[in-house]
Amino acid sequence: MALDLPALEQQHADFIKAGLKLDLTRGKPSFEQLDLSNALLESIDASLVSKNNDDGVDLRNYGGVNGLKQSKVWFADILGLPTAQSENNIFVGGNSSLSLMHFSLWLAFFIGFRDNTASWQQEAQEKNSRVKMLCPVPGYDRHFALCEQLGIEMIPVALTGSGPDIDQVQQLVSQDPMIKGIWCVPRFSNPTGEVYSEATVTAIAQLGKIAGNNFLVFWDNAYAVHVIENDAPVLSNIAEKAAQAGCEDSILQFASSSKMTFAGAGLAALASSQNNIQAFNKHFGLQSIGPDKINQLRHTQFLPSIEAIHQHMAQHAAILKPKFDTVDQILKQELGQDNNLGKWTKPTGGYFFSFDSQQGLAKTIIDLAAEAGVKLTPAGATFPYGRDPNDCNIRLAPSYPNLEELTLAMKVFCNCVKLATTKATI
Amino acid sequence: MALDLPALEQQHADFIKAGLKLDLTRGKPSFEQLDLSNALLESIDASLVSKNNDDGVDLRNYGGVNGLKQSKVWFADILGLPTAQSENNIFVGGNSSLSLMHFSLWLAFFIGFRDNTASWQQEAQEKNSRVKMLCPVPGYDRHFALCEQLGIEMIPVALTGSGPDIDQVQQLVSQDPMIKGIWCVPRFSNPTGEVYSEATVTAIAQLGKIAGNNFLVFWDNAYAVHVIENDAPVLSNIAEKAAQAGCEDSILQFASSSKMTFAGAGLAALASSQNNIQAFNKHFGLQSIGPDKINQLRHTQFLPSIEAIHQHMAQHAAILKPKFDTVDQILKQELGQDNNLGKWTKPTGGYFFSFDSQQGLAKTIIDLAAEAGVKLTPAGATFPYGRDPNDCNIRLAPSYPNLEELTLAMKVFCNCVKLATTKATI
Repeated sequence: MALDLPALEQQHADFIKAGLKLDLTRGKPSFEQLDLSNALLESIDASLVSKNNDDGVDLRNYGGVNGLKQSKVWFADILGLPTAQSENNIFVGGNSSLSLMHFSLWLAFFIGFRDNTASWQQEAQEKNSRVKMLCPVPGYDRHFALCEQLGIEMIPVALTGSGPDIDQVQQLVSQDPMIKGIWCVPRFSNPTGEVYSEATVTAIAQLGKIAGNNFLVFWDNAYAVHVIENDAPVLSNIAEKAAQAGCEDSILQFASSSKMTFAGAGLAALASSQNNIQAFNKHFGLQSIGPDKINQLRHTQFLPSIEAIHQHMAQHAAILKPKFDTVDQILKQELGQDNNLGKWTKPTGGYFFSFDSQQGLAKTIIDLAAEAGVKLTPAGATFPYGRDPNDCNIRLAPSYPNLEELTLAMKVFCNCVKLATTKATI
Repeated sequence: MALDLPALEQQHADFIKAGLKLDLTRGKPSFEQLDLSNALLESIDASLVSKNNDDGVDLRNYGGVNGLKQSKVWFADILGLPTAQSENNIFVGGNSSLSLMHFSLWLAFFIGFRDNTASWQQEAQEKNSRVKMLCPVPGYDRHFALCEQLGIEMIPVALTGSGPDIDQVQQLVSQDPMIKGIWCVPRFSNPTGEVYSEATVTAIAQLGKIAGNNFLVFWDNAYAVHVIENDAPVLSNIAEKAAQAGCEDSILQFASSSKMTFAGAGLAALASSQNNIQAFNKHFGLQSIGPDKINQLRHTQFLPSIEAIHQHMAQHAAILKPKFDTVDQILKQELGQDNNLGKWTKPTGGYFFSFDSQQGLAKTIIDLAAEAGVKLTPAGATFPYGRDPNDCNIRLAPSYPNLEELTLAMKVFCNCVKLATTKATI
């Protein structure tokens, strides 16, 4: 495609002149999506919270440190775990799953997750090495920030479109006993949108066999039920596969209602082996007087069954789909499909598009867009230490702006891609 | 007082036969107290949360990691800090203050609270020593449990009736640079109910001068506004005194609404120097998507001023005072006031009585009470490592049972005291 540099520059100048203020940085639910859950703001009958006899606890008082029974069942349904397992295999807290990941990470790093596992820190001191974790890339910047805070060395692993490159993962883990964990967003991965294949899930479920019993898979199933297209791939059940392999102690599954109800006032869950949940409860219970049980009740009353949850998520999808369609359409219209200007895959769920420009152009494109009033996630943010070795990955988050704003932002973005690419090839 | 052993034994046997099930273990608000805050269960107008322009944040969405402005002012009022300081000197989270103490402790221990302070762990390694903290006794078991989890050596310090023995504190701190902090419940201390005197507050505010800039006072002001008697002593303002001494970085003040509204669904705050709040926000923000801002709004709407807060606390006092009176009256009636059988002071606020039996009898009394169906806090719980060197301290928590149950429980308790003391002196 031959591009007309002066026209692109003129267009860019016009966008700058328009003084736009658009933002595609974070995966935030829109106003409309939040409105879907306004029933959570309705009053609760006092008799429901004071006489709720889940373990005989008045929901307004202290107690029930690991979550209400009904909220454990709620998350069991979301994660596809048997109801019978919910009591001993699930912990439900307040917002957010990120806090549960943080606590789990610190517990494993500083104290040892279970009584029979050494702290990662201690193992590293004994081996005169560093704690390391595998990070499929591009990935979620907040996972990386948690590692960076603790000085955990992050080893990037390539994503394939159906999860991380398993050969690479297995090889790395078998070579270095100080690789103690892996971050996974297995369904509608942030930002690629890919869903891990059954073979990948099976292999990850069994990593403990190679990596030992102090290895933890941080299975951040943030988008477990966040389907946009009806034909979205289903995720295999890692808990089942891990149990079959005797590796259940190495899997920590996280889920959250943040992008189902209110992003800032939701519930979060950890699901794992009985051993792990027992260890987690013991340590978490030292610093907690229990989660907000009233908010747990609000959620299970508002969405009382997995069918209700899926129907509710379909309403989210109805709002998100036009936005995802718009992003895809404008990218196609403006950039064509010959991969010269960039590559992307339209996700079937989740919150993001992952766009790869030509090598070395992501930062330039993002700076140009900022100049024209469109804020994008900083270049490199999807890689450990903020370093994208090819400087090509850009995360686009279409959920928050309305359709009109999104259309305009995407036009600005595409013009920046064309402008940067043309300049680079002159 | 001459006591009749067979009569005491007969009485004890009668209590056992009655099959009582009474519980004076934990400082939980009663059903009636929780009912005082049922307005928090009422519906919230969606326009209030979606258009609440505190920093332009939709309260339902992500964001506002360090709390809503109005909730910071709310806690500034509770802690007696100037409103103007609330923005930069206060962090407001969800429940509970215990979680904020935990996070602060881990931050100081493992990472270093501020960028310019080493981690306590690192200092200990360099000095080939252990991290130590001062624990005024009798004290709060959950503080001790946080220390024990990290292997922090706890050094007991005597309480005097107006706070810890300051000579002892200053001497210890000046002798050992690995003493890195002190736990304080400065008003209506748990369990003694004492209020730290102005001289004590002044001395604690200045400890940083002796102990260095990596020393932290964990000022757990859990009962800041929890007055029962109108003549309850007022607590001096430690923030002011620390600022005068240039020690503001060594004071972490914690407060909580748990015993003001709903124990399980309240707000918690950390107040400290700008440096500390900045450092706290930075690290806490890595693992948080923000507190439940809707619940923060619920609280500031329900109790919109410090006057409203005091009025609300007076309603709590109206429920608690008859219970505290009952405990004191029955102790006086049954045990007399000659200190032969035990010592206690009637607190003017807070949640507990601290009872000291004759030396070596606490465990026996608690076991006897359990036998007769009255659960008490385990012997030793008010001391580090659960070890009361004199085996005499018993914490009584009168808030939860109703007056009738409380009366009966106290009669059982007093009979156990008399029985144990009589047996011990035969």
